[in-house]
Amino acid sequence: MRILVVGSVALDSVITPFGAKDDVLGGSATYSCIAASYFTDTGMVAVIGDDFPENHREFLRTKGIDTSGLQQVPGKTFRWKGKYGEDLNSRTTLDTQLNVFADFDPELSPPHRQCPYLFLGNIDPDLQYSVLQQMEQPRFVACDTMNIWIDNKRESLLKTLHKIDLLIINDEEARMLAATSNVLHAAKKIMAMGPKRLVVKRGEYGAILFGPRTIFSVPAFPVENVFDPTGAGDSFAGGLMGYLANVGLEDEFTLRKAVVYGSIMASFNVVDFGAKRLGELTFTEIESRYREFIKITFYENFSKDNEMKLNLLS
Amino acid sequence: MRILVVGSVALDSVITPFGAKDDVLGGSATYSCIAASYFTDTGMVAVIGDDFPENHREFLRTKGIDTSGLQQVPGKTFRWKGKYGEDLNSRTTLDTQLNVFADFDPELSPPHRQCPYLFLGNIDPDLQYSVLQQMEQPRFVACDTMNIWIDNKRESLLKTLHKIDLLIINDEEARMLAATSNVLHAAKKIMAMGPKRLVVKRGEYGAILFGPRTIFSVPAFPVENVFDPTGAGDSFAGGLMGYLANVGLEDEFTLRKAVVYGSIMASFNVVDFGAKRLGELTFTEIESRYREFIKITFYENFSKDNEMKLNLLS
Repeated sequence: MRILVVGSVALDSVITPFGAKDDVLGGSATYSCIAASYFTDTGMVAVIGDDFPENHREFLRTKGIDTSGLQQVPGKTFRWKGKYGEDLNSRTTLDTQLNVFADFDPELSPPHRQCPYLFLGNIDPDLQYSVLQQMEQPRFVACDTMNIWIDNKRESLLKTLHKIDLLIINDEEARMLAATSNVLHAAKKIMAMGPKRLVVKRGEYGAILFGPRTIFSVPAFPVENVFDPTGAGDSFAGGLMGYLANVGLEDEFTLRKAVVYGSIMASFNVVDFGAKRLGELTFTEIESRYREFIKITFYENFSKDNEMKLNLLS
Repeated sequence: MRILVVGSVALDSVITPFGAKDDVLGGSATYSCIAASYFTDTGMVAVIGDDFPENHREFLRTKGIDTSGLQQVPGKTFRWKGKYGEDLNSRTTLDTQLNVFADFDPELSPPHRQCPYLFLGNIDPDLQYSVLQQMEQPRFVACDTMNIWIDNKRESLLKTLHKIDLLIINDEEARMLAATSNVLHAAKKIMAMGPKRLVVKRGEYGAILFGPRTIFSVPAFPVENVFDPTGAGDSFAGGLMGYLANVGLEDEFTLRKAVVYGSIMASFNVVDFGAKRLGELTFTEIESRYREFIKITFYENFSKDNEMKLNLLS
């Protein structure tokens, strides 16, 4: 197994301007694992209740995801209910039931401990730290977090941040964590907290990758029919980590392309409820969108090859 | 003269979190002309009152701008007063005094009528149309507008839009003009109104260029010390048009690079009050930032030349 993803598996109820759906398969680990599964062997560590539909687990297995770390315990699965505003940029949480997720305390199996790539999805930073302690020298660790942990578990979060290679958070979280509004200032402050690199996700506006001496800024892939943005950030992280693990390098160029692949996975995810579209992709579709991505972002003719120029615009 | 810019010249009073300043040289024509002046011969058509400081006019002349169309009439110069919020993304207009600008009715001189490039800054669309009628077959016309005209002068605006090559507006204006929240839908609807192409400016997030069959999305150049965002959009338009007029082509690739140069001019403009920094640039600084821009946006190795790869990151 190349990547281990630790996070939540949830049953989401989502209300969008285009319709509503209950008990959609969701959660950070779900989206990240599905996105990563197109690139590499992926394992999931999460918890579900005894109400979890068997077809969801079966679906994850058909994606080639190792679900041996998906622990099923008595009780109900984590549930989240949310509603999106007209423009899909604002979201209101209507209900959160942690259920079995409240007592989640992941214990890794020996093969999981040996995974070279680890993605710590958005869970309590104490749990993230506990997972890190169980790993045997992972090659590359990325981590997500959210406003609740930045506010209420700052010390634990800082302890985790000291141990990771890459933090992947959104704009608002970066500003909150660094207590500054300028994204460049925020990035410097956050990298001083430990992570060697930082990705700031900006939703429909794209993402920025910060390194010790480098900045890479890339727009999002423009999507005409955004339907349900749930899980876009997790799909992004999964695609990014999947690509990295596939290539097996973490140099600046591989990371940049990984950010683009992350953006691509997010752009597929938002066009249908839950992980529906994300789950039915082919690698050919992903590669084809990568070439589209080049077409919409390319402006300098590195090769001085006019034929390539024209190709890119055809 | 290569470019004619029609718009406002104002004396702005600006309050930012970092300080306040009265009677700063501002207005859409000012920022656009200064930005364009680094690339090509630029002429300004605007109106000022008899209170307009002679040193401001002299400053415009030192930038090589043809101010023969800067009409001075009895009365006071257009004044705007605004205040920026803590994060510089929100702006409140505290006072607007149109003064001599209220009766602005530009009449172009014979040399101005022959300019191949025309930028219609944000003024009443009836005036924009009147200027268009006076031009002798310009090669390329770009136009800006704002919420007031979209709301109150829609018919006049649509008449102008039928006659232009490129509309340059911001995100919010695009959504307003097209009455839709998705930027891709908005772009299609707007291009159906007449403009062959559209640039949607997204402030610190970048810009998107839409063509009949193409999309080019580019992030903004990240700026650490944003001080006063006034005039960023006009600097963007001026840089874009200046680059186009300099090259003398309007193909997709030239337009894409023009958008990047527009972004660069905006990035310089925001670091000091008014047009202070914008006005003191050298072309070497602009070219150097263009190379920086490539470094921060490059992810695909078109040339397969590893040396160039490394160069771009050094």
